[in-house]
Amino acid sequence: MNKIKVSIIGATGYVGAELVRGFLGHPNVELKYLTSRSFAGQKFSDIYPVFRGVCDIDCTDTDYETVAKESDLVVTALPHGVSSKTVPVLIENGARVIDHSGDFRYKNLATYEKSYKLEHPHPELLAEAVYGIPEFYRDQLKDAKLVANPGCYPTCSLMALAPFLKAGLIDTKSIIIDAVSGVSGAGRKESLPYAYCEMDETFKPYGVVGHRHTTEIEEQASFLAGEENIHLAFTPHLAPFKRGMLATIYARPSDKFADVSTEKINEIYKDFYKDEFFVRALDLKVLPDVKDVNGSNFIEVNGVYDKDTGLIKLFSAQDNLGKGAALQAIQAFNAMFGFEENTGLSFVRGV
Amino acid sequence: MNKIKVSIIGATGYVGAELVRGFLGHPNVELKYLTSRSFAGQKFSDIYPVFRGVCDIDCTDTDYETVAKESDLVVTALPHGVSSKTVPVLIENGARVIDHSGDFRYKNLATYEKSYKLEHPHPELLAEAVYGIPEFYRDQLKDAKLVANPGCYPTCSLMALAPFLKAGLIDTKSIIIDAVSGVSGAGRKESLPYAYCEMDETFKPYGVVGHRHTTEIEEQASFLAGEENIHLAFTPHLAPFKRGMLATIYARPSDKFADVSTEKINEIYKDFYKDEFFVRALDLKVLPDVKDVNGSNFIEVNGVYDKDTGLIKLFSAQDNLGKGAALQAIQAFNAMFGFEENTGLSFVRGV
Amino acid sequence: MNKIKVSIIGATGYVGAELVRGFLGHPNVELKYLTSRSFAGQKFSDIYPVFRGVCDIDCTDTDYETVAKESDLVVTALPHGVSSKTVPVLIENGARVIDHSGDFRYKNLATYEKSYKLEHPHPELLAEAVYGIPEFYRDQLKDAKLVANPGCYPTCSLMALAPFLKAGLIDTKSIIIDAVSGVSGAGRKESLPYAYCEMDETFKPYGVVGHRHTTEIEEQASFLAGEENIHLAFTPHLAPFKRGMLATIYARPSDKFADVSTEKINEIYKDFYKDEFFVRALDLKVLPDVKDVNGSNFIEVNGVYDKDTGLIKLFSAQDNLGKGAALQAIQAFNAMFGFEENTGLSFVRGV
Amino acid sequence: MNKIKVSIIGATGYVGAELVRGFLGHPNVELKYLTSRSFAGQKFSDIYPVFRGVCDIDCTDTDYETVAKESDLVVTALPHGVSSKTVPVLIENGARVIDHSGDFRYKNLATYEKSYKLEHPHPELLAEAVYGIPEFYRDQLKDAKLVANPGCYPTCSLMALAPFLKAGLIDTKSIIIDAVSGVSGAGRKESLPYAYCEMDETFKPYGVVGHRHTTEIEEQASFLAGEENIHLAFTPHLAPFKRGMLATIYARPSDKFADVSTEKINEIYKDFYKDEFFVRALDLKVLPDVKDVNGSNFIEVNGVYDKDTGLIKLFSAQDNLGKGAALQAIQAFNAMFGFEENTGLSFVRGV
Repeated sequence: MNKIKVSIIGATGYVGAELVRGFLGHPNVELKYLTSRSFAGQKFSDIYPVFRGVCDIDCTDTDYETVAKESDLVVTALPHGVSSKTVPVLIENGARVIDHSGDFRYKNLATYEKSYKLEHPHPELLAEAVYGIPEFYRDQLKDAKLVANPGCYPTCSLMALAPFLKAGLIDTKSIIIDAVSGVSGAGRKESLPYAYCEMDETFKPYGVVGHRHTTEIEEQASFLAGEENIHLAFTPHLAPFKRGMLATIYARPSDKFADVSTEKINEIYKDFYKDEFFVRALDLKVLPDVKDVNGSNFIEVNGVYDKDTGLIKLFSAQDNLGKGAALQAIQAFNAMFGFEENTGLSFVRGV
Repeated sequence: MNKIKVSIIGATGYVGAELVRGFLGHPNVELKYLTSRSFAGQKFSDIYPVFRGVCDIDCTDTDYETVAKESDLVVTALPHGVSSKTVPVLIENGARVIDHSGDFRYKNLATYEKSYKLEHPHPELLAEAVYGIPEFYRDQLKDAKLVANPGCYPTCSLMALAPFLKAGLIDTKSIIIDAVSGVSGAGRKESLPYAYCEMDETFKPYGVVGHRHTTEIEEQASFLAGEENIHLAFTPHLAPFKRGMLATIYARPSDKFADVSTEKINEIYKDFYKDEFFVRALDLKVLPDVKDVNGSNFIEVNGVYDKDTGLIKLFSAQDNLGKGAALQAIQAFNAMFGFEENTGLSFVRGV
Repeated sequence: MNKIKVSIIGATGYVGAELVRGFLGHPNVELKYLTSRSFAGQKFSDIYPVFRGVCDIDCTDTDYETVAKESDLVVTALPHGVSSKTVPVLIENGARVIDHSGDFRYKNLATYEKSYKLEHPHPELLAEAVYGIPEFYRDQLKDAKLVANPGCYPTCSLMALAPFLKAGLIDTKSIIIDAVSGVSGAGRKESLPYAYCEMDETFKPYGVVGHRHTTEIEEQASFLAGEENIHLAFTPHLAPFKRGMLATIYARPSDKFADVSTEKINEIYKDFYKDEFFVRALDLKVLPDVKDVNGSNFIEVNGVYDKDTGLIKLFSAQDNLGKGAALQAIQAFNAMFGFEENTGLSFVRGV
Repeated sequence: MNKIKVSIIGATGYVGAELVRGFLGHPNVELKYLTSRSFAGQKFSDIYPVFRGVCDIDCTDTDYETVAKESDLVVTALPHGVSSKTVPVLIENGARVIDHSGDFRYKNLATYEKSYKLEHPHPELLAEAVYGIPEFYRDQLKDAKLVANPGCYPTCSLMALAPFLKAGLIDTKSIIIDAVSGVSGAGRKESLPYAYCEMDETFKPYGVVGHRHTTEIEEQASFLAGEENIHLAFTPHLAPFKRGMLATIYARPSDKFADVSTEKINEIYKDFYKDEFFVRALDLKVLPDVKDVNGSNFIEVNGVYDKDTGLIKLFSAQDNLGKGAALQAIQAFNAMFGFEENTGLSFVRGV
């Protein structure tokens, strides 16, 4: 069989590098272009020496038309505001696209424009874009021209919430998401606060009011619940490890949730995700740990009922660059091109 | 002036070691006995080589009577259930005591016995014991015979909540405490889950229902609020660093809280803690970071108002072995013996 | 094609877990038995939760005869002294074997018995065993019944030294190997010195006289140089990271080494390893970094000439569990069973 | 007693911050000026939040004349080439000076100019400057106007070598220093290679030929040995921790070293450093660990004899910002101003 030609625009950030790692191991993919404005002309393995001998391709600054024409799929790892201008060019030139920015994740234009403080140059694509969580939008991915790869916090949060939102089991006014990310979430950059000696032993909240991922979670949570305008609280924290993300979510059971118990919550997860390769619905009282999903596309979920306060506590752990970004994009790619979703993606990190 | 004679029972755990470090730097203290069942006969600096040349005292297994008689203050760093039997002996023999276990932290006997699943052999001491947060119980510490040093999570949580509980500004039914501790909180022990290769890159929740510190926080929160039987949600997490603790707290403002805003929350903290050396009420929108209090007795607090959800978010950071344990005990010691509270305690870690 | 049946004896240590990870990704392998005395009856993924969903096989305590009869290859990850008794049983029952202990790494019985302070119950196997560095003993691996997988320090050291020893370019009396290992090298165990709070921020030498790997390196160095009884100095250190190993080697050029220079050293490496997939002979003046080989079977080498002292400095970096143990065993397996040596082994860790 | 007025020029780098931490705890010091070009006008505790409440002084850009006139001691933490111009101004204006650059560490002008590739504007000060290791130059420090605070690697190496060099016990042609530094040694800067995600899990050699500290060690080693032009090999490595340094040193015993043994080496250390507070000559076969000196001015030394190769191996561990920089400067200050050398300096880090 011919291999699918995949190009990556903005290949030299951390998401780009994880895309390269993932696609390199995919049996049906040929990496075509790795583009980079800053590093054009350099070997990819000079930028990321870990790839010496496995990806010594030159980064290029090839124009988008050419990239699109010579690729079956283009994955864009660009800043928001840049993607919204680039993606339409790629689509016009015949490529299918998976985009990593926030630019195509919203259905509601106003929410996007308010959250990102930008005018969208191609709002007509919002309706067409498929929100790239395969577990939720698998069917639409098959024929999707444009996939908006979800934010890391939204993926982690929504996959923990989905079984309860879909079944109407939680009071949607009561949701609080407390989440933690590894440092790679901030991207690859020269910046004093992210220097080793500044980050080591740091643990701190940031973006505690109005973080952009809040509205992204809210819109998708509304779709899952079949209810308009869910508002929820979201508080991200930065932790001293490279990769990994954990969400701890608080919510009150709705009146529909009869006989709430830790056992029930566990059963709901087990049942909802029973056919999902990448979702580990953990055994009763076993809780997620970022260590266990690090370097993989797996996500772990579980929850408990705290009867003293009447609150449900839900937990999910993923790799922010894995299921939270690049590897989920490859899972979506598999869905788009008709491969088994775990093709080339069943690796774990080991010790 | 004669130095105060201080002994530590159970000196070889992490809290014990931090007590030694703190008291060594205190200008008015003479360390008398460092007792240890497991390490009696060994030099303290053989157990903790970091103390070579500064604390080469032999650990002993001296009987409690002798320790008490020859000391002005005895600090016990013993497991719960052991402290409750040991402390009375020390007091009878004339020593003042600061205890680090949960055994004397509660006023309500039933809550203690339910939380710790133990019968208390000396419930008569519960009333007498002073809960050792100097910022709240300074006056009672002066003449206290017995100080119950608070749990690490309770100190971190209560100091963030106090200004709002005291002024009745939050709905006490709405409190959720999401907290994170460094690994030293688990103590010094041979245990596979705490081995370096198992803990590195871990981030996970634990004890998510019924953690003992919940009831300790609840009882003190009730006292601060002047309200009976507050129940709140508490979720601890384990993070991959040795020392440090952060609490992120969610609550709804009460009707009494007029014109809630981030600015108001900040002013309340600044005002409430304006005379407190160890409490850093941070500037508007500056958030706590465990790195900045690591190795010290400082605690940082601040908060924001999230108007989209109507929730208040409060944050506090401390060192779990510092303000969360041993160094707060030394602050209490200063209050007990009439020293300025920051005597010997104004150090920070630096880079 | 039928898959090769591979079993692992002692599968639940860190080397075992890395073997499982590696073989799981091998397209021509079926994992048959994972045996463990301590964990028999438990799912492998309960011991290593990172494998949930990818290796949920039960660990067994199957007798060695059965394991051998039902497997094409048995990999033993057992302590020395145990391997020497177990491996012969496996071979007698028809399996080919790769052993991870020191028991079959020596040709000279006396050196083994002195180094390991053990009498060898099956010295007749020493001659037959192939020392499992494929880059050196590829041809013998093809028909090997028994492969002695090398020690981590020996692999790292010998691959840096080989081009110079083989060509007689260094004074074999002048060799000093200064090396550093990550913590996983100590194995999976409950042990206070390896607890997170004890290991974090540690950097220290250990085993500085008479470390067993010294004689293993010496014997193989002697073979490479075609010279008897090379003695060299070896000093291992422990560093605060899970995986990874670096060797810094000092030696004087021999009289045969004309016009020594950094450029020459680099050329020698490039030439010697030009056909080796897993050996990265780095570009001139680019030096190895453990980060870049972590989680892979790659090894990096390079060197410089310090004309002020007349010393050659050689550097090599590998993953102690990768090229230093489990992944090199899989490379050897590929050589034994006629696969391309990088089959299933071309992955790298990424960011 | 009047306090000594101390100012720090270049106070906002990591050495500067450690100087501030150390001097803050000194009972006889008043911090006068903290100068910084980049951060003038900002509170020191805004740059280093860890100092909130203990050092909220404003950084200034005060001219050097004023700083010198109003201070008893000025400590300069400036780049080389800048110090050589600044220090003379300070001295002319009446201040005593401790300088942290390489500009005044050499007696031999040519060696300095070759090593630093700079012409020295004030070579007349080289003779006058005292090399600031108090254990070696205590007497000269008393009246020193200018102290050249040693490099971190030189301190660590020389203190391990001194007893053997002074007694002529090692062959000075055989010395090899293999050393490791924590990341803070690279200073506080925005630089991609020192970003958290790039440094984490890194271990690598750097500056492996011609590192400047080589000539600094050589000159001082020559003085200690009373022998001209010692040349030695030096190889630094970067390790993934903030603070700490370890040197592993190889040398051959000279003919004068009768009956070399590990015991003898240990006795020599114990004897040579018997009166030194900050030098821990460890017990027989106990080896240094950076963890144990981290955050302090202590340095640990010990050694072994490897009879198989006839080599001596010496080990030393210190904190690169402690005994390797800022805290040693404060020890020198104590010597300069007639205080006990450990005044304000006997703290250790603890757990």
